[in-house]
Formats: sequence, C-alpha cells, structure tokens
Amino acid sequence: MARQDPPPPSALDDPAYRTGVVELLGLLALGEISACERLVADARMAPDLRAKVEVAAMAAAEFHHFEQLRDRLVELGEDPFAAMDPFESIFAAFHAKTRPSDFLEGLVKAYVGDGLASDFYREVAAYLDGETREIVVETMSGTGHSDFVVDQVRSAIEADHRIAGRLALWGRRLMGEALSQAQTVVAERDALSAVVVGGADGPGLDLAAIGRMFTRITEAHTERMETLGLSA
Amino acid sequence: MARQDPPPPSALDDPAYRTGVVELLGLLALGEISACERLVADARMAPDLRAKVEVAAMAAAEFHHFEQLRDRLVELGEDPFAAMDPFESIFAAFHAKTRPSDFLEGLVKAYVGDGLASDFYREVAAYLDGETREIVVETMSGTGHSDFVVDQVRSAIEADHRIAGRLALWGRRLMGEALSQAQTVVAERDALSAVVVGGADGPGLDLAAIGRMFTRITEAHTERMETLGLSA
Repeated sequence: MARQDPPPPSALDDPAYRTGVVELLGLLALGEISACERLVADARMAPDLRAKVEVAAMAAAEFHHFEQLRDRLVELGEDPFAAMDPFESIFAAFHAKTRPSDFLEGLVKAYVGDGLASDFYREVAAYLDGETREIVVETMSGTGHSDFVVDQVRSAIEADHRIAGRLALWGRRLMGEALSQAQTVVAERDALSAVVVGGADGPGLDLAAIGRMFTRITEAHTERMETLGLSA
Repeated sequence: MARQDPPPPSALDDPAYRTGVVELLGLLALGEISACERLVADARMAPDLRAKVEVAAMAAAEFHHFEQLRDRLVELGEDPFAAMDPFESIFAAFHAKTRPSDFLEGLVKAYVGDGLASDFYREVAAYLDGETREIVVETMSGTGHSDFVVDQVRSAIEADHRIAGRLALWGRRLMGEALSQAQTVVAERDALSAVVVGGADGPGLDLAAIGRMFTRITEAHTERMETLGLSA
C-alpha cells in the first residue's frame, strides 16, 4: 500500500493560533448558552403565551448556535466545557449587572446582545481558518426574531413615550457593561485577542486594531438602537 | 381544460372529528410548550453547566415538538393560541402541584412527563387521519435524553439509598396528578375524548376504552420508574 500524504499544512498546526481559536470557540459557546439561559429566565416576565413562544424560539436558536460551536470544539479534540470554563465569570458578571426589570428590558437586552454577537462574529470571521470560519458564519445569522422585538418596543413607546428614555438608558448600560467585559477578555487572553484582530503572526497584540473593532461595533449598536426607536 | 376532481373525502370534513383534532393538537402543543418552560425553570437548580446543557437540549426538543404541532394547527386554518387556551388552567394546575424541590426531582418529572406524553401520542395516533398522525408520530419520539436522566438518578441513589424512597413517592405523585388532570380533560372535552379512543363515529363516549388507555399508560409508567431504579 502506498503511504498516505501528510495532512495539508493547517493554520491549526500553529499552537498560538490553535489556542486562540479554542478560546474563541469557548467564549462564543458560553456566550450562546448563557444568553439562552438568561433569555429563558426573563421569559417568565412575558405578558402572554404568544410572547413566551417568541422568546422560546429565540432561546432555541441560541441553543442551536451553542451546539454547533460545541461540536466544532469536539471535532478539534477539545473538551468543550474546559474551553468554556475560563469565561464563566465574565458572563456571570455581565448578566448580574444587567438584570432586566421587566419584559421590555429583557427583549432589548436580547436584541442588543444578539446584535453585538453578530457584529463580533462578522469581525472575527475574516481571520479564521476555513472550517472554523464556516461554523462562525453559520452561527452569526442571529436568532431571526428581531421583528418581534422591534414591534414590541415601538408599540410600547407609542403607548407611553416615557418608556423611550428609560430603554435608551438601559441600552447604554448594556453596551457599557459589554464593552467593559470585552476589555477584561482582551487584557487576560492574548492568544484569543490576537486571533480576533488577525494578528497571531505579528510581534505583539495590536491594541489599536482592537480599539477600531470596538468602535465599529459601537457604531452598529447605535444604528440598532435607532431601529428600536431609541437614542443610543 | 378538464374540471378538477373534488378533494377526496377527508375525516376532517366531519365537524365532530375536526373539533376533536383541533382540541387534541391544542392540548399537545400547550403540553410541549409548558413542559419546555418548566424544564428550563428547573434547570436553574442544575449543579453544573454540563447538566444545564443536557436540560436545555431536552427543552429545545420540546420546543421543536411544539413548533410542529403549532404549524399543523396553522395548516388547518386555526389560531394555535386559541386552540391552546382552553388547556392553560389544566397545565398550570399540574405544574403548580408538582414543583420539584431539587434538580433530581426536576429530572424525574421531565422523564416521567416525556414518557407519558410519548405513550399518549402512541395511543392516540392509531385513530387519526394520515396527516395529523404523521405530525403526532414525529413529535412522539421523546426528547432523546433519557440516558442522561437514568444515569443521574441511578448514581444519586447509589450515593445515598434514601433518595430512592423520596423519588419513588415523587413519581407516584406526578402520575397521580397527571391522571387527575387527564380525567378533568375527559370530563370537559367530549370531542377530544372521542378522538382519543377512536369513537368519534360511535353513539357516545366510550368511558371503558378511556379507562383501558389510562391503565396501559400507568403500566408503562411503572416500567419507566423501574428503569430509573425506583418502585412505582
């Protein structure tokens, strides 16, 4: 029998890149499962069964994203729970500091979080190896239920204009907390941060590139808040 | 152009059968969404992320069942929420009377409930028109996560034998409450009850047939409890 050719050289053979990708997948997987969990907890505040079903559909989409990311970690020979573990305190802190006080705040949080995740996935995708990129692009599609959130928020504002000010403040707080937790991740996770801005082969972490990424994500957040009828 | 043949005579043209099927689909749909909701609420008691993910996977399967049942109601030209509405108090009463006091009780409840639902679906399927049967058979597959529950319950009992007695009592209480709510449905819903035992064309409700169905389901429950290592 002829000897098999060795596998083609892969970006994943680079240990720094591999570490960064496993951290990234762990971060994204934990983000999806913890978003799913919080969303479902907030659904208890839903005014009726119809709204509960909408929220459950969003949560089910997030769970499906989680499954895809987890399966990619398993494919890479990693324990998905070990990969997620380092990020538990990050998401726990984020959710503890952003507990919605009513159903509308929960919806805005889901909408904003879903949007931030999609933006982040889009930013990161460019620098990933083909297979990892495919997973990330598939899970970046969002939960596809934003129309429901936009309708709910806009009609609540129509019924009572004071709600707009409260929800705008809430949106700013969500974004502030998200950025603050993201900075913590950047500070603690060199390999991950390098993958995120495509600098794994460079001489050090490109903080300016990370700063520009955060700026682009913040701009997209501002547009999303306007779609909801809120000033960012 | 030749005139089209009229659609073939369908069981759904019979108003009594149609009423029963819509009630049945409403009952099953509400059962799935309320099981999904309770399961997710109980997941807060999960000891670790791995267990939470298992429970989330069960909840996602139930949500998918719900979606299939809801879509069938929409296909039939019905408002799914109107079809579910009459059963809200039934499931609310069941869940209020069977609140798990810890994660294990939650798992046993999910396992028992999932099993009862599958048994009931199987009983009913025989008497349904082809298309409705197909949906019911698809959703009757269970959540496919019983191995996790069996492992958790059996190892908890191994670690502390006293748990077996408490969980056996809990299983009896779950079954008792389920039967009690089922009797209420039978008493209040003639068209549904007729469909369930295939007697829609008979001269009255066949209570003996319903009794035999409950007996078969109770026997299957006993076997399931034994699989968990519990006496029924």
